[in-house]
Amino acid sequence: MNDTKIGHDQGPCPIGRAGSLLGERWVLLILRDAMLGLRRFDEFRGHLGIADNILAGRLRRMVEAGLLVKTPYQDGNRIREEYRLTEAGADLAPVLRALADWGHRHTGGAEEAAPMRAVHVDCGGDLRPDNQCTRCGAKVGREEEAWIRPWHSPAPVRLAAPTAAAARRESATGATVVGSG
Amino acid sequence: MNDTKIGHDQGPCPIGRAGSLLGERWVLLILRDAMLGLRRFDEFRGHLGIADNILAGRLRRMVEAGLLVKTPYQDGNRIREEYRLTEAGADLAPVLRALADWGHRHTGGAEEAAPMRAVHVDCGGDLRPDNQCTRCGAKVGREEEAWIRPWHSPAPVRLAAPTAAAARRESATGATVVGSG
Repeated sequence: MNDTKIGHDQGPCPIGRAGSLLGERWVLLILRDAMLGLRRFDEFRGHLGIADNILAGRLRRMVEAGLLVKTPYQDGNRIREEYRLTEAGADLAPVLRALADWGHRHTGGAEEAAPMRAVHVDCGGDLRPDNQCTRCGAKVGREEEAWIRPWHSPAPVRLAAPTAAAARRESATGATVVGSG
Repeated sequence: MNDTKIGHDQGPCPIGRAGSLLGERWVLLILRDAMLGLRRFDEFRGHLGIADNILAGRLRRMVEAGLLVKTPYQDGNRIREEYRLTEAGADLAPVLRALADWGHRHTGGAEEAAPMRAVHVDCGGDLRPDNQCTRCGAKVGREEEAWIRPWHSPAPVRLAAPTAAAARRESATGATVVGSG
């Protein structure tokens, strides 16, 4: 994500630590796509229009950071690998929703689009920021949360379930803490 | 933030647009510091331990993007400039809070610290993600919101008020939209 080895990676501020993992545009877009069910290298590449080497580098760093895990799958005669969200990766849904709200209010797209909505799969109600359903009042877990992105399709897309495999988390090495966080 | 000119800057997805403005670690840290009242080049430099040229570049991009505005102030005999949050910049508080929550849960600091809290200045109650106060029940505006970062100080710090000056917003130029957002 950032080649600088001097960082806030291990500092006391959780915004600093989160930012050192997530503060990269492609990482945010790959997370968004993974949240919406994409798993394979070719899917990410096709959807994002990203160069192979950049995508490979970002995916590797995201696996190292514990946001994604590589899982084998059968592709004809070959065994290939796909990328599944970890619990930590899936828990970023509220961050992406906050970004979507802000982006809708404060940035202009090529076409004016209706906002992204987070909805309760069961009843179709919109979710508040704390995931309470505005229609039925239920406290909605991630497994019952879907996003509607009207510029893409009117159909709600369920959030991808995180992999059950234990997230392998490697902390960044050699990081030096600077600043007071 | 990102030197690639091919981007999602103008695409229909608000996460893509927000990510192209915010997807850079230093930008997130500068925003955090601005939110907590820092305004001057030397303050950001001292707090972040960032090189002059990198800080200058990030601040310039953040002004161009409409997150900060430059405002003159008197420094002895000299007129210098400080950086104030715009409305759009100040509206990023929920994004930073979501990052802080996630960072606290999923990343480890050098020392185990208590989480960052967003509180209601009037009564000291914690704020829910939708900014309702858990103590007095009030719907709390940004002007009554403070953050407590216990690793730094037990004292709540009020969020900086955005500048009243109209945010000058220049859209990124020369951006080509790729991907379907």
